[in-house]
Amino acid sequence: MATLKLRRVAIDTYRENVAFMHRACNVYHSEGFQALNKIEIHREGDGVPVIAVLNIVDDEAITAPGELGLSEQVFEQLGLPPGTPVQVRHATPPHSLAAVHRKIEGEALSREDYLEIIRDIVENRYSKIELAAFLVGCAETGFERDEVLHLTRAMVETGDRLEWNEPLVADKHCIGGIPGNRTTMLIVPIVAAHGICMPKTSSRAITSPAGTADTMEVLADVDLPPGKMHEIVQRERACLAWGGTARLAPADDILIAVERPLSMDSPGQMVASILSKKVAAGSSHLLIDIPLGPTAKVRGHQEALRLRKLFQFVGDRMGLTLEVVITDGTQPIGRGIGPVLEARDVMQVLRNDPRAPLDLREKALQLAGRILEFDPDVRGGQGYFIARDILDSGRALAKMEAIIDAQGRHREIPDPGRLVHQVTAPHDGVVTAIDNLRMASIARLAGAPLDKGAGVDLARKVGEAVKKGEPLYTIHADFPANFDFAVEAARHQNGYEIS
Amino acid sequence: MATLKLRRVAIDTYRENVAFMHRACNVYHSEGFQALNKIEIHREGDGVPVIAVLNIVDDEAITAPGELGLSEQVFEQLGLPPGTPVQVRHATPPHSLAAVHRKIEGEALSREDYLEIIRDIVENRYSKIELAAFLVGCAETGFERDEVLHLTRAMVETGDRLEWNEPLVADKHCIGGIPGNRTTMLIVPIVAAHGICMPKTSSRAITSPAGTADTMEVLADVDLPPGKMHEIVQRERACLAWGGTARLAPADDILIAVERPLSMDSPGQMVASILSKKVAAGSSHLLIDIPLGPTAKVRGHQEALRLRKLFQFVGDRMGLTLEVVITDGTQPIGRGIGPVLEARDVMQVLRNDPRAPLDLREKALQLAGRILEFDPDVRGGQGYFIARDILDSGRALAKMEAIIDAQGRHREIPDPGRLVHQVTAPHDGVVTAIDNLRMASIARLAGAPLDKGAGVDLARKVGEAVKKGEPLYTIHADFPANFDFAVEAARHQNGYEIS
Repeated sequence: MATLKLRRVAIDTYRENVAFMHRACNVYHSEGFQALNKIEIHREGDGVPVIAVLNIVDDEAITAPGELGLSEQVFEQLGLPPGTPVQVRHATPPHSLAAVHRKIEGEALSREDYLEIIRDIVENRYSKIELAAFLVGCAETGFERDEVLHLTRAMVETGDRLEWNEPLVADKHCIGGIPGNRTTMLIVPIVAAHGICMPKTSSRAITSPAGTADTMEVLADVDLPPGKMHEIVQRERACLAWGGTARLAPADDILIAVERPLSMDSPGQMVASILSKKVAAGSSHLLIDIPLGPTAKVRGHQEALRLRKLFQFVGDRMGLTLEVVITDGTQPIGRGIGPVLEARDVMQVLRNDPRAPLDLREKALQLAGRILEFDPDVRGGQGYFIARDILDSGRALAKMEAIIDAQGRHREIPDPGRLVHQVTAPHDGVVTAIDNLRMASIARLAGAPLDKGAGVDLARKVGEAVKKGEPLYTIHADFPANFDFAVEAARHQNGYEIS
Repeated sequence: MATLKLRRVAIDTYRENVAFMHRACNVYHSEGFQALNKIEIHREGDGVPVIAVLNIVDDEAITAPGELGLSEQVFEQLGLPPGTPVQVRHATPPHSLAAVHRKIEGEALSREDYLEIIRDIVENRYSKIELAAFLVGCAETGFERDEVLHLTRAMVETGDRLEWNEPLVADKHCIGGIPGNRTTMLIVPIVAAHGICMPKTSSRAITSPAGTADTMEVLADVDLPPGKMHEIVQRERACLAWGGTARLAPADDILIAVERPLSMDSPGQMVASILSKKVAAGSSHLLIDIPLGPTAKVRGHQEALRLRKLFQFVGDRMGLTLEVVITDGTQPIGRGIGPVLEARDVMQVLRNDPRAPLDLREKALQLAGRILEFDPDVRGGQGYFIARDILDSGRALAKMEAIIDAQGRHREIPDPGRLVHQVTAPHDGVVTAIDNLRMASIARLAGAPLDKGAGVDLARKVGEAVKKGEPLYTIHADFPANFDFAVEAARHQNGYEIS
């Protein structure tokens, strides 16, 4: 094996490990390396190599002969000071690729196969194209439901697990696709006010205009160190944190980074992805929300039922107490779409403000009620009424304020974007449909979720009458380029159907 | 759209276009770019953008705010001086991905679908993971034979085509997998000496220990400018050049760069890849060699016949006159494995040297005979005898020497690698099998094809008797590290079966 000196190259290659070698480096020639080869980087006295893809450099200012340049991610994985000698060699293809080829040929894989594949993925042994081959192979031949269970288990076993030392740790998850659907920020304070432990970690938006973490971040810090999170949960029974720092089912993050650009979203992948994260996060009781509608992720009732059965099959075997509810996904929930506008809706509901969107309040109460019924002392059918009492009495608001203070309150809440455009009704009529995808896309073009104040504020919902020239919704943006894109998109197709 | 100033970043990212933007660049923030996003780079007054994958940089020495850094490949594609203002924006996913998704779902695609996919691929609109999705999708559901034809046509139509203005332009192709199988370097001079035009372009080895271009390069230049190649073919009726510079079926090169690390090699892909290159190279008559054997690429007779039928179906419809022969692929051909050792075998056959390997001579004569029979004036069954006359009379050698001189003779032919290890028989017996894959692997570990003199020199072939301690083969290498790897591999499993 050849020895080279480590160097940090200040290039962020996201989830792909990249190493740099100078074209004149003697190791490059003697070992017959080529650009895009995978190499193993070995630390002295350490058995587990780090894998990276090789790029060749012609500029000593980036990486000189005798050096091995590493992109920021790999450099941190290795955790060694610059100049440390490391050894490099050709990486052998991951052994588990043989199982991927069997899958591509239509075979169902075993528990051991999935464990081996997922372990190799977590150890960064798969290149992006190998990840794509695995995903497409699975999407194409489909999963036996046992395979979804194997995959879920393998993803849990190859990451960390949180421990709460509680008999009932509640969680909820919506499969997504409905703009404005911020029920979590209402359910958590209601459920915690009742006394059920609900240490909620959420993701940031990736393809949507706002995630729970983005919206909560308008009000408070969400990037909590593990110790602080435990402390808050012990005191308040709940938190609303960003889940990005914990190493829970890390294979899922790696797979998603390839699934997303491919727009691959098979039911098996989805179930394994969601349930592995929840089990790893230490949840014992889980409510799953499947919105159903013509522009939602799930568009047919049969499809929704099949997905529910798959969640139940895998959830039961993973030891979760699981409820799956199919909800109305025909239009956005609430009025605001985008972090600041959605936070406003949430706080209006908590404050029992007369302007609060009723659909958001109702949906949150329904879902919170189902979680409250996980409590053995709550009589079946009573959850909704308990939830409503907690909300109406102000106890949910008080709990939310306590959680915000505990996580670190943001004193200055940004205003909705100052660039404003009203989209108006082209004729009199009744709103018959609002396209979820279109509204999400316009809000993202306006700058959400990166610009917290950007987004869309709905003035009319399905079933409401509107007169020609009256507002349907308002676009908010902070930057002229985004504003123009969003207005242009709305002009092209505004997402509303009016009878 | 945002404007940035071009900068060349001296990083070779092989077939992937990479662009670099500084984290503090205002475009990075205002446009909401993320690492690994695909971006479009627009030149002023030019409609066709260049696509690249974005990496984020934290070092102004690589790319400063306000600049757009480009890896060497993209920089050359754009062909603009550093500092030129260009505009960037999010790349829209290639439209043809919808067809890829239909393929993944099991649908057969149309001629238009393939043309659209292949055009997007040639225009660098597909990321590596999208390429992998296309390949796995095709491998998994398989191709209808019409689809192979559509794919072949699309690959030809999206690249350049060579024109020879000849009624008969002969070519041959072996699907590979048999070490030492250097018949091309014998067939070309025989066929050209007869007067048939055979402008042969070959690839370099990628997974094998030597390609025709690597072996010819021991004797002469192979990297010929198009003008020179035409001139040589006009004078000598033939050449033995490297085909890497022409833009023939460029989609194939892009697909192969992803197929290879995935070890994907479906019959449909193989047929489309081979036939598109040949049609683009201007060939009218083509001989395909399918070696059959337990360690060859094709291992069963039925499989070989199916492959032959697929070649015939597509070849006929592409207007090629095609012969497909199934040959003995049970062991390596000739004695040498590696460029210098194989060049020695070839020259021994041409010189009618008594040490020349008979199997290489026989196979080359059989194949050359079939090509000679493409000539309407050659009576069926006479090709072999004409080929033998040309070889025995020294006319093939004279033609080869003329081609070598025309291309640029290499005066100094390297010796076989000076580090030498003999692998000997562990007991008396008769050689019953030689493993093609094992021998290729040992030769590559020894340094072939990059070290021209490295490789394996066989002393015994199948059917020959050997006594305990007598040599089976000799390993040659130039560098101690490679030598040790190869010797170690041979010690672990020497690739020979002795009864």
